[in-house]
Amino acid sequence: MARNINALYTDVCDRSRRIALITSIESTLYWDQSVYLPPQGGDYRAEQTAYISGLTHECWTDQRFGDELEELVGSELAADPDSDSAVVIRKLKRARDKKTKLSQTLVEELTRASILGQQAWQEAKRASDYAKFQPHLEKMIALKREQAQAIGYTDALYDALLDDYEPETKTAEANAVLVELRKQLVPLVANISESKKKSPHEIVCRRFPEAAQATFVVEAAKAMGFNFDAGRLDVTEHPFCTTMGPKDCRITTHYYENHFNAAFFGVLHEAGHGLYEQGLKAENFGLPVGEAVSLGIHESQSRLWENFVGRGLPFWRHFFPAAQMAFSEALGNVALDDFYFAVNDSRPSLIRIEADEATYNLHILIRFELEQDLLGGALTTTDLPGAWNEKYEKYLGVRPKNDAEGALQDVHWSAGLIGYFPTYSLGNLYAAQFFDQAKKDLGDLDERFAKGDFSTLREWLRENIHKHGQRYSAAELARRVTGRPLSPEPLMRHLNDKFGALYGF
Amino acid sequence: MARNINALYTDVCDRSRRIALITSIESTLYWDQSVYLPPQGGDYRAEQTAYISGLTHECWTDQRFGDELEELVGSELAADPDSDSAVVIRKLKRARDKKTKLSQTLVEELTRASILGQQAWQEAKRASDYAKFQPHLEKMIALKREQAQAIGYTDALYDALLDDYEPETKTAEANAVLVELRKQLVPLVANISESKKKSPHEIVCRRFPEAAQATFVVEAAKAMGFNFDAGRLDVTEHPFCTTMGPKDCRITTHYYENHFNAAFFGVLHEAGHGLYEQGLKAENFGLPVGEAVSLGIHESQSRLWENFVGRGLPFWRHFFPAAQMAFSEALGNVALDDFYFAVNDSRPSLIRIEADEATYNLHILIRFELEQDLLGGALTTTDLPGAWNEKYEKYLGVRPKNDAEGALQDVHWSAGLIGYFPTYSLGNLYAAQFFDQAKKDLGDLDERFAKGDFSTLREWLRENIHKHGQRYSAAELARRVTGRPLSPEPLMRHLNDKFGALYGF
Repeated sequence: MARNINALYTDVCDRSRRIALITSIESTLYWDQSVYLPPQGGDYRAEQTAYISGLTHECWTDQRFGDELEELVGSELAADPDSDSAVVIRKLKRARDKKTKLSQTLVEELTRASILGQQAWQEAKRASDYAKFQPHLEKMIALKREQAQAIGYTDALYDALLDDYEPETKTAEANAVLVELRKQLVPLVANISESKKKSPHEIVCRRFPEAAQATFVVEAAKAMGFNFDAGRLDVTEHPFCTTMGPKDCRITTHYYENHFNAAFFGVLHEAGHGLYEQGLKAENFGLPVGEAVSLGIHESQSRLWENFVGRGLPFWRHFFPAAQMAFSEALGNVALDDFYFAVNDSRPSLIRIEADEATYNLHILIRFELEQDLLGGALTTTDLPGAWNEKYEKYLGVRPKNDAEGALQDVHWSAGLIGYFPTYSLGNLYAAQFFDQAKKDLGDLDERFAKGDFSTLREWLRENIHKHGQRYSAAELARRVTGRPLSPEPLMRHLNDKFGALYGF
Repeated sequence: MARNINALYTDVCDRSRRIALITSIESTLYWDQSVYLPPQGGDYRAEQTAYISGLTHECWTDQRFGDELEELVGSELAADPDSDSAVVIRKLKRARDKKTKLSQTLVEELTRASILGQQAWQEAKRASDYAKFQPHLEKMIALKREQAQAIGYTDALYDALLDDYEPETKTAEANAVLVELRKQLVPLVANISESKKKSPHEIVCRRFPEAAQATFVVEAAKAMGFNFDAGRLDVTEHPFCTTMGPKDCRITTHYYENHFNAAFFGVLHEAGHGLYEQGLKAENFGLPVGEAVSLGIHESQSRLWENFVGRGLPFWRHFFPAAQMAFSEALGNVALDDFYFAVNDSRPSLIRIEADEATYNLHILIRFELEQDLLGGALTTTDLPGAWNEKYEKYLGVRPKNDAEGALQDVHWSAGLIGYFPTYSLGNLYAAQFFDQAKKDLGDLDERFAKGDFSTLREWLRENIHKHGQRYSAAELARRVTGRPLSPEPLMRHLNDKFGALYGF
């Protein structure tokens, strides 16, 4: 019996929206767990989450869903590749195909390895004893190879993993821009290190009362355009942004009374993610045309607001007087230029999450290179700590004293997140290239920022990036918005100009 | 094929636990909605909640669940009525039978009438225009009669509705104690009204800074034994207590800077509910042996802590010095006896939720009498406001000036909660009778409270009431714990003694 194609398409959309609904409930459980769950509530929360995950899995793997997508892929609804229906059909089929390629056994093994791996990693990091973690990493690498084989790839095993976070971007493409970025970053960082000029960094390490930080940063997030009627800001240990519905986006932060930068730029970062989520079309919630393109594009939105707007001098021309009022004890007698240099202190360091704008990408590139070598077999898990330390010495000129601040630093590998790291740097590259284009399209943004006008930029991002959802791949989106493929040039130009001026080279 | 009875029982327990798991997720969504949901998040939250409710409904109505319970009811696992397995089988069968007796159409009509009824009630109350609400109440009464017919009853239609909130308690039993209670309360309240002694009530209406209230009340809840490692206290518009897992019980409150009583006794009340939830056996979570008996028994626990402990002089012998420190501006120069009289101010009033310990039950008994008459046909919805006002005049000696403070006062009827009101007063009677017994069993509780020892009472409640879950019906539990059936005598004795001493009669 011939089925009506439109009815099929409606059913497929309903399924996609139902998956999003269930996922949004899981996000609510996760948000509560991170922000308010009582200490003893964790075990049952895990049961609740496992149950909800199981529901999502059932929805994805339903055979009728697959049959319907198969039929739709060849229909006229998929003919114009940029149409809503074609995007929905193509992206859902792609996502479902990937999910059904992994056996139930492999999924369960990966889940177990991730849980055990994270436990072992925590202990190993606490004891700074890499040997405790090494067998778990060995196991994880083997499972991720198996996963990549099951998914399939053309050039590199790594392609299949990268695709989970940066869909349709190939390892070779990422390497092309990121290796070039590394080559240009190393001499920039060396220049900063060797500069005689030093940032008056202690200014941002004075006392910034938590309540005043909270009020001040909400004002900044509102000025960016984060909609607090459709979102919240709460306090958590490890800040994040999560979406619990088309009009419910939650960001979090962590205040440190003796460090202004952490919460302030952290909130600009999360609010940048939040603006992307709030800029997706609400009526498309739960469909690929209403969802973010990739982690790289998502990160471009957070980094653009955090670094290109928030760490810029024009932003502070507007906000510094208010900051002086809010933190009169710390900033009352500080000059704007000194404050600007203080928030932009740059120096080679060992810890990724504390790294500044200039050095940050080298931390990422080290991880990206190492995880490719681990997966491809050029590097054994036993040799990882040594390789890590050598790259830190070579690229940043610093060497970890122990593995806790070396190869055990991040949770990602223990949790099976391999292929995730490069999206941070791709995000920085996309941010620079988008911001460059925005300035070309909108004229003098510096002057607008200095006047407190951030809505012009926000609307440009909404119009050019947010509203498309997954209509275009990340690479295609960059080409359409900026007229050229992704390149390290805009980011390097920005960094060389900014840090050259600050550090005098 | 003969099935193994133990395997059947295990399956039935798994189903019960799964229903509890899904319900706990719904509670999480509800809690978040009441406490933190951004204003625009409501529509999607309704979709999430409807989806989760649907899952619970599917679990309950699964025919295999019914077949398994049918088989178990006649098995040896149900032989000893007080055994865990017999309780689980009996209570689940009872609950499932009730759910399956209602047609899908009736359930949907009730849901719709409740939503529309609450909207109409809100508007009617705002305009103090009963006519706007009357057709909705008429419709609701008709549907509740239909519900009662579908469920079935032996004596009164009302039995079938009361059973939803106070299972296994008959209308005649409730009337026997509550009519007698009313007869004895009316003269007590008249004595208080006519007394020349007046409470120095303004003391508790001075300025009590919110932050100080929050700190102080948490200390009181901790002293009661509310476990904040397995629970939380947050701020909401309409305070409640909800359980989101065996180790996750959340209570809420609302602070008023110019009224000490509201939040303080409100938190003791909710923490009393919370202690019951935390006193149920965690390993029985999701099974009837791990769940509360009835709303009346639940309310007995909240009222016991709120009124019999918290509004007592011994409690304040311990806490008043700390209160004077916390609220030095308001209480620094106040004598303990004056403060005690101030928190126990009693006077006939129109608003139930603001009523004091002595007058409160008359508010309930008015509603209980009226809803029985509405359901039985002795009173029309058109005549309700007049009947309401007459009863207020007759029992409390006050008369509403308009329907907003009269028949439109509470949300319950608009939401279809008919049969709910009497559980408040049953709770007060159970509280008095349990507290009486605790004093007999434990000796001088006054002295313990004055020393800050509340754990002796808490452990007694845990041992005698909480740990049994639904093993015994409410009436049976009262008989077992106190050696006699529920009676108005302990409550009236308590009220006459306390208010006689305060008001000098």
